[in-house]
Amino acid sequence: MELVKDFNWKKGMTVKELVDAYSQIGFQSIELKKSADVIVKMKKNSAKIFLTFTSNMVTSGLRGFFAQILKLKMADVVVTTAGGIEEDIMKATGEKFVIGNFNSDDVELHEQGINRVGNLHIKTESYTNFEDRILPILDKLYAKQKHWTVSEMFREIGLMLDDENSILYQAAKNNIPIFCPAITDGALGFHLYLFQQKHKDFIVDVVKDFGNILLSTSFDEKKGVIALGGSISKHHAILCTLLNGGAEYAVYMTTAHKTSGSMSGATTDEAKSWGKVKDDSDVATVIGDVSITFPLAMINALEQLTDEGLIKGVDK
Amino acid sequence: MELVKDFNWKKGMTVKELVDAYSQIGFQSIELKKSADVIVKMKKNSAKIFLTFTSNMVTSGLRGFFAQILKLKMADVVVTTAGGIEEDIMKATGEKFVIGNFNSDDVELHEQGINRVGNLHIKTESYTNFEDRILPILDKLYAKQKHWTVSEMFREIGLMLDDENSILYQAAKNNIPIFCPAITDGALGFHLYLFQQKHKDFIVDVVKDFGNILLSTSFDEKKGVIALGGSISKHHAILCTLLNGGAEYAVYMTTAHKTSGSMSGATTDEAKSWGKVKDDSDVATVIGDVSITFPLAMINALEQLTDEGLIKGVDK
Amino acid sequence: MELVKDFNWKKGMTVKELVDAYSQIGFQSIELKKSADVIVKMKKNSAKIFLTFTSNMVTSGLRGFFAQILKLKMADVVVTTAGGIEEDIMKATGEKFVIGNFNSDDVELHEQGINRVGNLHIKTESYTNFEDRILPILDKLYAKQKHWTVSEMFREIGLMLDDENSILYQAAKNNIPIFCPAITDGALGFHLYLFQQKHKDFIVDVVKDFGNILLSTSFDEKKGVIALGGSISKHHAILCTLLNGGAEYAVYMTTAHKTSGSMSGATTDEAKSWGKVKDDSDVATVIGDVSITFPLAMINALEQLTDEGLIKGVDK
Amino acid sequence: MELVKDFNWKKGMTVKELVDAYSQIGFQSIELKKSADVIVKMKKNSAKIFLTFTSNMVTSGLRGFFAQILKLKMADVVVTTAGGIEEDIMKATGEKFVIGNFNSDDVELHEQGINRVGNLHIKTESYTNFEDRILPILDKLYAKQKHWTVSEMFREIGLMLDDENSILYQAAKNNIPIFCPAITDGALGFHLYLFQQKHKDFIVDVVKDFGNILLSTSFDEKKGVIALGGSISKHHAILCTLLNGGAEYAVYMTTAHKTSGSMSGATTDEAKSWGKVKDDSDVATVIGDVSITFPLAMINALEQLTDEGLIKGVDK
Repeated sequence: MELVKDFNWKKGMTVKELVDAYSQIGFQSIELKKSADVIVKMKKNSAKIFLTFTSNMVTSGLRGFFAQILKLKMADVVVTTAGGIEEDIMKATGEKFVIGNFNSDDVELHEQGINRVGNLHIKTESYTNFEDRILPILDKLYAKQKHWTVSEMFREIGLMLDDENSILYQAAKNNIPIFCPAITDGALGFHLYLFQQKHKDFIVDVVKDFGNILLSTSFDEKKGVIALGGSISKHHAILCTLLNGGAEYAVYMTTAHKTSGSMSGATTDEAKSWGKVKDDSDVATVIGDVSITFPLAMINALEQLTDEGLIKGVDK
Repeated sequence: MELVKDFNWKKGMTVKELVDAYSQIGFQSIELKKSADVIVKMKKNSAKIFLTFTSNMVTSGLRGFFAQILKLKMADVVVTTAGGIEEDIMKATGEKFVIGNFNSDDVELHEQGINRVGNLHIKTESYTNFEDRILPILDKLYAKQKHWTVSEMFREIGLMLDDENSILYQAAKNNIPIFCPAITDGALGFHLYLFQQKHKDFIVDVVKDFGNILLSTSFDEKKGVIALGGSISKHHAILCTLLNGGAEYAVYMTTAHKTSGSMSGATTDEAKSWGKVKDDSDVATVIGDVSITFPLAMINALEQLTDEGLIKGVDK
Repeated sequence: MELVKDFNWKKGMTVKELVDAYSQIGFQSIELKKSADVIVKMKKNSAKIFLTFTSNMVTSGLRGFFAQILKLKMADVVVTTAGGIEEDIMKATGEKFVIGNFNSDDVELHEQGINRVGNLHIKTESYTNFEDRILPILDKLYAKQKHWTVSEMFREIGLMLDDENSILYQAAKNNIPIFCPAITDGALGFHLYLFQQKHKDFIVDVVKDFGNILLSTSFDEKKGVIALGGSISKHHAILCTLLNGGAEYAVYMTTAHKTSGSMSGATTDEAKSWGKVKDDSDVATVIGDVSITFPLAMINALEQLTDEGLIKGVDK
Repeated sequence: MELVKDFNWKKGMTVKELVDAYSQIGFQSIELKKSADVIVKMKKNSAKIFLTFTSNMVTSGLRGFFAQILKLKMADVVVTTAGGIEEDIMKATGEKFVIGNFNSDDVELHEQGINRVGNLHIKTESYTNFEDRILPILDKLYAKQKHWTVSEMFREIGLMLDDENSILYQAAKNNIPIFCPAITDGALGFHLYLFQQKHKDFIVDVVKDFGNILLSTSFDEKKGVIALGGSISKHHAILCTLLNGGAEYAVYMTTAHKTSGSMSGATTDEAKSWGKVKDDSDVATVIGDVSITFPLAMINALEQLTDEGLIKGVDK
């Protein structure tokens, strides 16, 4: 029986200390600390870890953190959306995103060639620059072969990039596959389409790639899902682990609530009806903005794992 | 200058009368009536209407309403997710979904072979029955050709069904294309994969299908988006209209908020920064559960349009 | 075992028909129909009904509906906040509220003397007019007695008003007490304070009024709570029924979620831990904007009750 | 023009470093860092700081942090609800609250005499113990005088307690008034009522206390509001600062959204229409669970202020 404990600040408090204290504060802070502990369990028990996120998180500075997580081998499989991929490439090739305001005059922004994602801005120019960069990449891919699965294509692109903070780069360098079931849903899709118009035998085979994610794990292996936000990235990882007997561990971090029956808001409890997770200590759902909650939970987990020598190569 | 008006109930009040009154109540009720009026504008101005929804809405009884909307030609293009497609087929081939509870014992449900989607239940049996039904369908498709786009495949499947309440059936019958940028993200994807394992030359071409949605409209045409829920269905319709110069009209109905910068919560205001919509009277964002809000807004629009003779063939 | 049913619109559909259909659609629509049925149960079983709402709902056009509900004797006790009381008086004495926009330029509105409540506007002028109207009312009250409880004061004020759409008027006319545990939290509080400065023996006795709400019901009586929104109005009604052995019926309609442990988001399930409600068929929590959901649920209940002859004096 | 920056974890990272990095991540993390900076501004510019919170936060371990904040003189006026006061007294007199689960069997909890507040538990026994403790306190208060304002009563009670983590204790010791416009809305109200039944001349004067909060600041003084959660605590602080010419600084932290027009969800932008705040750099609204967000923002502010020597007496 754990008691609520009065929280007190100490000068110089670390993130680990604060998140440890969260376990006795209440409400979502308790769930957040629980999620850190579930992540630690995944790693300790050598589970295959599926990390999923939506494109707006790649728009944000979490992108560099995702890349670092891959570098530290804290994820074995990544699932995301087309927007996340193209923005990772944009940033890896020099584009800068700007901090704006939730309450902008959007008509004015549009006139300035600025596209708003919450309180972040992407210049229309970044999209035209992306076009200049993706075309030679597609040429190189096509020169190599005509028939690609999405994850293999991403691996090739990752090897062409040179940015420690790039998700594609770190994934390729660390042999971590990235899946994207809706590859055409973005500027990338548009350029793939235009490319195919010129090269009729160019094929992106999503069906075959479903086999790749399916075979990325197995019934015998322990599996964990860290799903940030909802959408098909979350669903795809859950689907894959389900077809492999269900995940043993699950952490869902989202702003969506379960009350509308959406995938985005589906909790780790609902997951129990579909699959295999049985023990409350192995799942956690944290309601809140991932830009705040995910660094807290993951840093707490990373500090625990580093202290126990389970993560190597960390600069102190 | 519109005034707030004290609402009074009258015995036998119709949905149209209530939604008309909403315009003077306040908060989301005002936005809901606005959304009905934007839908009417879309139709009156002969805009090409993109209707998007997520799979949980097809799990719900909204499925029959979507089919009816297609029959009444109130949408010209549909975008949804793989789950929505497979559940439409399940229902069209006799599966029944059951009303449950948000606070179920999910471990117990799992033991009973019941999968929970919010307060709705799908039996595991329905998925095995789906397998029995989709395999001969895939055989027929393959016999016809080896290389399919997603929307063409859906059209063929729709023609094989016989259910007035089926989305695929009504779409096929009324020549309305259905797009699904993440075709593999569901049981359907699994069966496509297994099928491809046996028939190596079976190809689902998502890149080519991006061309199909892109060419489903044009710069010259007026365009309207009715996006229910978020996810890639919403994003894909917006992307397509954007690449065609932007939508003139937009109605977003969702439970997500704009505060986390997600696509699901992006408002019609944010859309202005990306595209073309300029006039406040042509966009509406309604926050609320679509199972409640969409029938209200669409019925109000349908009643207006029927009264003006703009929708034909309605049983009175 | 209730099944999900495909929804179809019929021309001229009534609110009652739509809400009846909600029971088989899914997600919050099911909960909404359940809430209508719980309200019907309250009335049929002669429960004492506590209706609570927050001041923003009185800013909206729901005010007239609340008044009508009191007239139809669908509530026996009302709990609200100071803002709700003062705005009811403002409207009863001629002030008009205006429909605005959620995304206004608030600095500009301020310069125009306009105060924004979501997408509704209240002129600063309405507050100065309120001052002119409340002062003679306080004079009359003081002339009658020096020591008032809040609910008795409201009854007197209600008798001075002449507006069928006024909550205070209908409450007074139908002998329904209105409680307001935070009477000073509004412009009303300011005027009470200034009045007391001139009349040192003027006392508003909130402690005594707690006795009044406590004695407004009893252990022997069945009790129902209809709580719209959260805040202390909701809490106060629950507290009072709890001290009388717990409510048998409860309907909570709110936009708040249970995940932060707040009173506003507390569900009818959480209520079971505190009190007496035991049967799931007697409680309902509906997540959504009350400006949309409450008219739907209450109209469905009113139509049912009128059809069964349990509500009299309804104009057809 | 601030750029989005890729976030990277460093071993041993402090809370201050993380929150500093938040300013370049995106979405709510940016708003959170902004809120920390607004709090620093309040202090640097010697604003009178109004801190408001709801009772569930006192149920949680934030209670000790609030007490510490008062000890560090980071707030000059406190506004809260009755539940917050009684739970502070309970804890100061030895009651322990327990960490539970959001998805409990509430009927079972009730049988065990456990009351649930989100994922926290309060035993019914704690309420009966509270009764034993509050009665002698009321006797002492009554022996001193018959006529009390709420804030004066709280000061007296605070002086009777002996707990460094008690809000009432630290407030009394540091001459910080606590206001509670809805004093009767809790177990405290019930005991006040019973006490008044025996002592008819015992008066709690809320109207006079409105004068006390009104005179706690002035037009000439700079004012800042830190509102945690919504409800009347938030509204009361805003009302008081408004009647004194408006607050120069405002930080709102809440899970409520502005879309339903409620006080809980009202943003600092909406506040501009009512008052005086003009500069975006002086206001911040953070959407998220206060149990996570408030420690982060306040610790960042405390570290900044301590580093600059603006807070004294901090143990290092």
